[in-house]
Amino acid sequence: MPYRATTDDFRFLFDHVIDFSRIAGTDRFAEATPDMVEAILTEAGRVCEEVLAPLNRAGDLHPARLDNGIVRTPPGFGDGFRALAEGGWVSIAADPAEGGMGLPMAVTTAVNDMMSAACLALQLNALMSQGQIEALENHASAELKAIYLPKLISGEWTGTMNLTEPQAGSDVGALRSKAEPNGDGSYAVTGQKIYITWGDNDFSENICHLVLARLPDGAPGTKGISLFMVPKFIPDEAGNPGARNTLRVVSLEHKLGLHGSPTAVMEYDGATGWLVGEPHGGMAAMFTMMNNARLGVGVQGIGIAEAASQAALAYAQDRKQGRSPIENGTGAIIDHADVRRMLATMRAETFAARAIALACAAAIDMDRATGKPEWKARAALLTPIAKAFGTETGMRVAEIGVQVHGGMGFIEETGVAQFSRDVRVTSIYEGTNGIQAMDLVGRKLMDGGEAAAALLDEIEEELETARQTMPDLAEPVWEACETLRETVEWLTSQELNDRFAGAVPFLMGFARVLGGYFHLKSALADPSGARARLARFYITRLLPEHAAYLAQAVTGAEDLYAIAAEDLVA
Amino acid sequence: MPYRATTDDFRFLFDHVIDFSRIAGTDRFAEATPDMVEAILTEAGRVCEEVLAPLNRAGDLHPARLDNGIVRTPPGFGDGFRALAEGGWVSIAADPAEGGMGLPMAVTTAVNDMMSAACLALQLNALMSQGQIEALENHASAELKAIYLPKLISGEWTGTMNLTEPQAGSDVGALRSKAEPNGDGSYAVTGQKIYITWGDNDFSENICHLVLARLPDGAPGTKGISLFMVPKFIPDEAGNPGARNTLRVVSLEHKLGLHGSPTAVMEYDGATGWLVGEPHGGMAAMFTMMNNARLGVGVQGIGIAEAASQAALAYAQDRKQGRSPIENGTGAIIDHADVRRMLATMRAETFAARAIALACAAAIDMDRATGKPEWKARAALLTPIAKAFGTETGMRVAEIGVQVHGGMGFIEETGVAQFSRDVRVTSIYEGTNGIQAMDLVGRKLMDGGEAAAALLDEIEEELETARQTMPDLAEPVWEACETLRETVEWLTSQELNDRFAGAVPFLMGFARVLGGYFHLKSALADPSGARARLARFYITRLLPEHAAYLAQAVTGAEDLYAIAAEDLVA
Repeated sequence: MPYRATTDDFRFLFDHVIDFSRIAGTDRFAEATPDMVEAILTEAGRVCEEVLAPLNRAGDLHPARLDNGIVRTPPGFGDGFRALAEGGWVSIAADPAEGGMGLPMAVTTAVNDMMSAACLALQLNALMSQGQIEALENHASAELKAIYLPKLISGEWTGTMNLTEPQAGSDVGALRSKAEPNGDGSYAVTGQKIYITWGDNDFSENICHLVLARLPDGAPGTKGISLFMVPKFIPDEAGNPGARNTLRVVSLEHKLGLHGSPTAVMEYDGATGWLVGEPHGGMAAMFTMMNNARLGVGVQGIGIAEAASQAALAYAQDRKQGRSPIENGTGAIIDHADVRRMLATMRAETFAARAIALACAAAIDMDRATGKPEWKARAALLTPIAKAFGTETGMRVAEIGVQVHGGMGFIEETGVAQFSRDVRVTSIYEGTNGIQAMDLVGRKLMDGGEAAAALLDEIEEELETARQTMPDLAEPVWEACETLRETVEWLTSQELNDRFAGAVPFLMGFARVLGGYFHLKSALADPSGARARLARFYITRLLPEHAAYLAQAVTGAEDLYAIAAEDLVA
Repeated sequence: MPYRATTDDFRFLFDHVIDFSRIAGTDRFAEATPDMVEAILTEAGRVCEEVLAPLNRAGDLHPARLDNGIVRTPPGFGDGFRALAEGGWVSIAADPAEGGMGLPMAVTTAVNDMMSAACLALQLNALMSQGQIEALENHASAELKAIYLPKLISGEWTGTMNLTEPQAGSDVGALRSKAEPNGDGSYAVTGQKIYITWGDNDFSENICHLVLARLPDGAPGTKGISLFMVPKFIPDEAGNPGARNTLRVVSLEHKLGLHGSPTAVMEYDGATGWLVGEPHGGMAAMFTMMNNARLGVGVQGIGIAEAASQAALAYAQDRKQGRSPIENGTGAIIDHADVRRMLATMRAETFAARAIALACAAAIDMDRATGKPEWKARAALLTPIAKAFGTETGMRVAEIGVQVHGGMGFIEETGVAQFSRDVRVTSIYEGTNGIQAMDLVGRKLMDGGEAAAALLDEIEEELETARQTMPDLAEPVWEACETLRETVEWLTSQELNDRFAGAVPFLMGFARVLGGYFHLKSALADPSGARARLARFYITRLLPEHAAYLAQAVTGAEDLYAIAAEDLVA
């Protein structure tokens, strides 16, 4: 399926929506000049269009398979990954001292968006390495960094995250994997891990597994968990892959989608590993990796939404059917009001989700560049929203894309059903969207709603001018902000489980309001153009949904627990 | 995947929600006594639990395939269909004079719901025959009826519908298939048809194709289309399958779901057929078949919603994870507020969609039994809502079901991903949900909104008492009815394309309001029980969505056409 890189959209968002110049104005990101960013996005877009997109269908048709203990990847995936690695696309955000480009997360986010749209199954490999690089940069010893970072950044080696065990999914603290000191500074790691994305492949020189396990003196629960680097091949003194470690792929899962990405059951049998970070400090290190990955997974949803939108628009312009309902119509189904509604919904939702993800990335960048706590709080607040809303948008938009194709959408050869299958897991992995929402109303409102209020203050301040110049669009957004503010105030005054009872609707309502705000900013920058027309569509047709979401957010838990399990039997 | 028949739910709905006693009180359906209905539902439920449900996964794993021109069906499907046929389940609504049971559509709808939940791919075969039987009963000559009806009703022969051609999907009038008189009363039918559900199989004695084609003097468009019965084997004088007709399966589609159901490209090469109904009257006959099938497809969505709900509830009660957030919790994930929210949403939505479908079936029954035009209008109004909302509910509930399963939901062996793949086509075939919505705001409001207003009058009259006895639930439903009434009034005053621009949101909003009403009736019948608790959940949490839908319904087409195709490029 052809894919057209969305560099123009990123440029617009950088210039008019997320104020990228503020990031580029910091010392840390001073090299991210407009020319530099333009060159990066253009070249990344070219790789996505020319190298990755042509691999996507093959990845679905020829699933990764386990062949005598070796994972065989789909045809072309090895060359595709090498192209990514050689272009430096695996981790453009990494530390320049280690071979990275040190570019802002906003730029990485744009690149991840395009890579996800072009070939999600392969991009997922790069995303895992990105997360691992960040975890190592922040937590690993100088020695480990020196061995692993250059190889991961160059893409010669790839990384995985090993959290889940059969009895320990969302509840990581229940894990049973153990690590015993070997006496030479290394540890013997033993245990079984499941759902290990890209647990093995046939194109990397080495696979670096970050594994959560418990030291002999580790307390039960999450406080007794440590993080270990457990490589497939143990690096020799020159840092080259040496002896084969005692770990193996037990099996690969048969999945609804992402067939090109091997999802492994891994077994560690006294495998040699090295501690990353402090003993019993594994969760902190893992959270670094997970926060990065959460935004990255949200962006995967957005990439699929983009790919689905492009495919649907092309089909709707091409497919002739019946008499056009309008004068001077094209005769294609795009002439029909309901098809236009679907196409505009896809585009407007994709834009909203993309703006939220980039705003989250920008907050991460500002935190890194300035160290100001308000940016850290902003990034923390936006991360679960970016993850859950990005992936929800991916699912919803891919589903509409199938619908636009009618009967053709149900036929696998068309390729759009694959988008909806592939994207389905994004709302589950890296913490289900329910977990994201619980993080939002739990941990992220523990400040009494301060970070949320600061964001709303900032938005409403900006709206003051727009209420004069573009009142018909600004007023509904302003009112939605007020409803959101009241909802935050209600939630912060409740017991935790009453917040949890409305967590997902709250997150969705929050995202709707942010979407309205970003569309409005977009309209203000292009008041008589396409951006304003799309903003009008969003604010008139989709923003009203925030009210139902936020109404459900404040219902509390009582009605839920009043319903017994047996009440749910028909 | 185990399935438990929902006979209790149907009994409750019959007694307290759709007033089945009114149907059973008519002369036509006097045999449908409570005991009779109970016996029918119990036995149908047993077949679904014991015979059909065990076939469902095999149907997915072993897709129907084309083998030297012969369609091979999945293991067990032949025996499964014979069990359906021998039990008389293929068409319990058919004319008793021809071997049917002559039972009300409400009972058929309940049986179809259970069969769809148990094995959608195989139920689809029975649904096609049901539609064909009804079309023949209403339009075929006595001679054709005598040959085909007994065999179709007994399930020895099965039926298909042949509408779509590559260039003629939703626009049936564009079809090119031709029929030339043979001079002996038969016709030579030539053309290619696509998306032919159960176009062939290896367990029926004969396959009866109803084919739309144009006679030599047929006008262009839908007015020149005629309907033909084109059997795979031409019946001999004794009515037994004789000479092989000149038709063949060209290929089968590779689909997202429903792998057990062969979807064929059919070629008719001067195949012998007989006219059904009047020359050039094919669309009228086809509409009989399609209206039946539209309700039936909506019910397919409900069946999948039921199956997905049962699987999710079982998993949520079984899956231990983390510390329970509540006192005296079970330790399983059902203790979590967000999981309960998902489970309650699944059950409440399934109930709402089921009530709407049964109310539609009841209107069809009352029309048949009384001939009163208000029942015909009621059935016509509810059919597109039942189809689109039933299938939308199927998709939404199946998606939530995957989410409840977390990572396991994405693994095919779990079986719940299959529900979401299988159900996906139901919102597309038998007229996409967009087409249903256009039918609703177009044809079904051509009466100036009279049928809709009559329904709202009836609902509000019932609400008057409830506003006294259960005001906290009745009041929001009453207000939603008023908003719906205003929306209908607005729509009926608009140009057609302005209605179309809000058609899908209008249909969804209409369904939300009906769902509120039916849940309220349910609560009134069980004021301190499980039904009232579920109704409270629905009315508090889900009913508020009607406002956003109905707001979008009245935005008109202007904003859609203001957005150019190039505006939709990112």
